[in-house]
Amino acid sequence: MKLYSYYRSSAAFRVRIALALKNIQYDIVPIHLLNQGGEQKSDAYTAINPQQLVPTLDDDGFVISQSLAIILYLEDRFFDVPLLPTDAKDKAFVHSLAQIVACDMHPLNNLRVLQYLSHELSVNDEQKQTWYAHWIVHGFDAFEQQLANHHNTHQHQPQQNGTDIKFCFGDTPTLADCCLIPQVYNALRFECDLCAYPHIQSIYQHCMSLPAFIDAYPDNQPDCPKV
Amino acid sequence: MKLYSYYRSSAAFRVRIALALKNIQYDIVPIHLLNQGGEQKSDAYTAINPQQLVPTLDDDGFVISQSLAIILYLEDRFFDVPLLPTDAKDKAFVHSLAQIVACDMHPLNNLRVLQYLSHELSVNDEQKQTWYAHWIVHGFDAFEQQLANHHNTHQHQPQQNGTDIKFCFGDTPTLADCCLIPQVYNALRFECDLCAYPHIQSIYQHCMSLPAFIDAYPDNQPDCPKV
Repeated sequence: MKLYSYYRSSAAFRVRIALALKNIQYDIVPIHLLNQGGEQKSDAYTAINPQQLVPTLDDDGFVISQSLAIILYLEDRFFDVPLLPTDAKDKAFVHSLAQIVACDMHPLNNLRVLQYLSHELSVNDEQKQTWYAHWIVHGFDAFEQQLANHHNTHQHQPQQNGTDIKFCFGDTPTLADCCLIPQVYNALRFECDLCAYPHIQSIYQHCMSLPAFIDAYPDNQPDCPKV
Repeated sequence: MKLYSYYRSSAAFRVRIALALKNIQYDIVPIHLLNQGGEQKSDAYTAINPQQLVPTLDDDGFVISQSLAIILYLEDRFFDVPLLPTDAKDKAFVHSLAQIVACDMHPLNNLRVLQYLSHELSVNDEQKQTWYAHWIVHGFDAFEQQLANHHNTHQHQPQQNGTDIKFCFGDTPTLADCCLIPQVYNALRFECDLCAYPHIQSIYQHCMSLPAFIDAYPDNQPDCPKV
């Protein structure tokens, strides 16, 4: 199995977490999003992924793009370590959290959008930072609220309060954590203040102590520049 | 079952298509996104959906937001009319198409983003139209290419060519059509030229001849203003 990836892409980071959690062996094919105007725009990569985005998974010739589609495919094929609950309502809750990040936060703040703001709309750095933070705040406000509502109501782990929950849902990592952790990493990189989000911070701290999340972390990728 | 909806929201439109395809009875609770600064920002609605977005589904007290999460929930609960193929690879293909729209096109062009461009970044109407069209072209270029690749390779319906395919995948509507049709509706509303997309146009034309898609269409909603 091959994953076309860029170390700092948070969509690729999601898939790397899922692959690591499921103990799937794979090779990274680095696609540098900045070098030479963006390797993702090369003819060779465009033939693999017409959207010119990472990640793309190649499972023995079956090629699939879109990070959530990839993770759901892995969920079907490698079900020993499930990343979704079985109950329909629980599953819907996990999907809805994942989609807050994947559909309403990340798409507004990824590289191609920030480049468009600078190059086509002459948005300055301060305005760009405000734009970035605006969508982070809007998304994380809702994400935190949903976590608070859920964990107050369900108390899967009664000993936990808002500041020591381990995962978005239940006692093991899910698709929601696969999406949340890269988004937090990204927000921290853009120096967003996350102190209003105790549930999110607690989950980030816990997940980032686990081997699968550490393995998938941008700094630990083969294409991360050496300092 | 209740759906908090706005007639012209393409995310709500997706869910209305899925509900209609699955023959699920439901009531619309209209949330007007423009009246009074946006009814979605009211305290009452924010308590239901902290993201202040439509749609939200209320299934006998179980409240779930995010259009794809809602459709996947309906898929689990009402499986008589499936909207996803059973084969893992086919399913992944359908998911990936749906996500081109839901993760990379619609989030950049929805009301709150266009409002931000105008109000916070003083982007003029022409620039806003260029922004809108840019993400439509980028997304539909890839969507069309994926359809062409798939239908040329698989030929589920060998009599069909690029200009008369009926659905994104196979012989019945899927999640991908639930996402594609509202995005085409939206693009047409913004007067985007779609002649470069024969597969997409063919699917739109066919789907919009079917009762479920007609029922779900914005103009046929109870909250659509009467001319």
